[in-house]
Amino acid sequence: MSETSSPLLLSTGAEIRAAILAARSNGETIGLVPTMGALHAGHVSLVRTAKAECDRVVATVFVNPTQFGPQEDFNRYPRDLERDRALLAEAGCDWVFAPSTDEMYPLGSDTMVHVGAAAAEWEGRIRPTHFAGVATVVLKLFNLAPANRAYFGRKDYQQTVVVRQMVSDLNVPIDIVICPTVREPDGLAMSSRNAYLSPTERQHATALRRSLLAAEELVAIGESDVEVIRARMESVLVDVDHVQYIAFLRDGAMESVDRIAGPTVIALAAKVGATRLIDNTLVGD
Amino acid sequence: MSETSSPLLLSTGAEIRAAILAARSNGETIGLVPTMGALHAGHVSLVRTAKAECDRVVATVFVNPTQFGPQEDFNRYPRDLERDRALLAEAGCDWVFAPSTDEMYPLGSDTMVHVGAAAAEWEGRIRPTHFAGVATVVLKLFNLAPANRAYFGRKDYQQTVVVRQMVSDLNVPIDIVICPTVREPDGLAMSSRNAYLSPTERQHATALRRSLLAAEELVAIGESDVEVIRARMESVLVDVDHVQYIAFLRDGAMESVDRIAGPTVIALAAKVGATRLIDNTLVGD
Repeated sequence: MSETSSPLLLSTGAEIRAAILAARSNGETIGLVPTMGALHAGHVSLVRTAKAECDRVVATVFVNPTQFGPQEDFNRYPRDLERDRALLAEAGCDWVFAPSTDEMYPLGSDTMVHVGAAAAEWEGRIRPTHFAGVATVVLKLFNLAPANRAYFGRKDYQQTVVVRQMVSDLNVPIDIVICPTVREPDGLAMSSRNAYLSPTERQHATALRRSLLAAEELVAIGESDVEVIRARMESVLVDVDHVQYIAFLRDGAMESVDRIAGPTVIALAAKVGATRLIDNTLVGD
Repeated sequence: MSETSSPLLLSTGAEIRAAILAARSNGETIGLVPTMGALHAGHVSLVRTAKAECDRVVATVFVNPTQFGPQEDFNRYPRDLERDRALLAEAGCDWVFAPSTDEMYPLGSDTMVHVGAAAAEWEGRIRPTHFAGVATVVLKLFNLAPANRAYFGRKDYQQTVVVRQMVSDLNVPIDIVICPTVREPDGLAMSSRNAYLSPTERQHATALRRSLLAAEELVAIGESDVEVIRARMESVLVDVDHVQYIAFLRDGAMESVDRIAGPTVIALAAKVGATRLIDNTLVGD
């Protein structure tokens, strides 16, 4: 099978589980890349990294309703499974698990996984049901597709913290691998939601990354006061319609810091027109 | 190793997981019996059933703090690991997993599994945090001790419904086996909490089972009106200090019924002195 032959498309949990258990019983290691489809170069990079580190790669394509709020974009979220399959084939993916909503949440489904403090602030405050939906679907996918390692992008920083907390707290036997954010040539973090931006908004959206670069420069010349850094970032973000938060967090956690005194994630969320975008960077030693 | 040699006692998740994965990779099937210790003939029966159906049996002994409410009996819950080990040895148990609280809930643990409607009423109304604690610890144990089958007693009827719902909703790869309630010669359901009863309370406690037998008799002669049955049960329960509920539920679910028109669980909870007891029976065709 050449690397670009199409990955096997499976739609039921029983099928994907059987495929993965068979491979594991042959001693193969499995990498899992959970996605909501509408794939971009960030997803492709996760699949390529997984393929480099594991014998087999399964990507899941499922627009998970439980992680969208009632006013959010579940219905208009972009979906194009044939295009996704072609991209996954090119990246060397072995299986695509693309279940229906009924397969994942049959009538009567009623259990949710709640991660506590790590899910409460920042994204969690703006999207109060989001991380319970994420933790629940990720745990379900880990059970249906029992991989050795699962790959997530660092762009969704709080998601990486929540998933790691859930895996640790519930003793889920899987390693979580966090991969670098992939960016457009002008620095905008890859996101399926970038497709919502008008050309003007697309230009304004570069302010998120530019504000993070400005923060990195300040830290590089010795600035450690987060309020000074925040003010500089806000001055870069003038073209953005609404900055929802700029957070300074101990790396690996969701704990706020007052000063840059060690590895620190600067994470922000902003609305550009009607589109919500997030980005982050790591600063400090 | 003779059947009555002591089972291997393990206290870390890493140890029990390694032991079980090694056995499974040898093609052995594993039965899991989660307990809070203070073992009685009901637990022993679960272990014997597991041993009859599986190659190896692991029993867990852990008084789970997250399933006790703040006013409940966590601190005085009976604990006697040496006696438990001896009983488990006699029943043919292979491993005893008896972790510390810190092993199960290290500092910073913050994730809870919430099962919805199945956990809300009856026991859930009286013990509002109970089933989240049960679902969370059971899921953790299933991940730490990945058995083929897990065994629960039917006495804790709502717990069996909640665990099954959690396993189904989260796609946990384990079969749940429900075993019959084991009773004292006078009919009292075996429970570690029976040890709290004074001799007089111990006598009064038989009213729970007697009320269920009275209900069975009414159904056997054709009575289907749950209010008639409830009135008869209450007349039997005169010596009980406080009947907390008598529930008529579609078998396998927590859905109330008005008439006995199919397999129906009659479940009750009552206080005898300061001790809370539960019991249930299955009636209807």
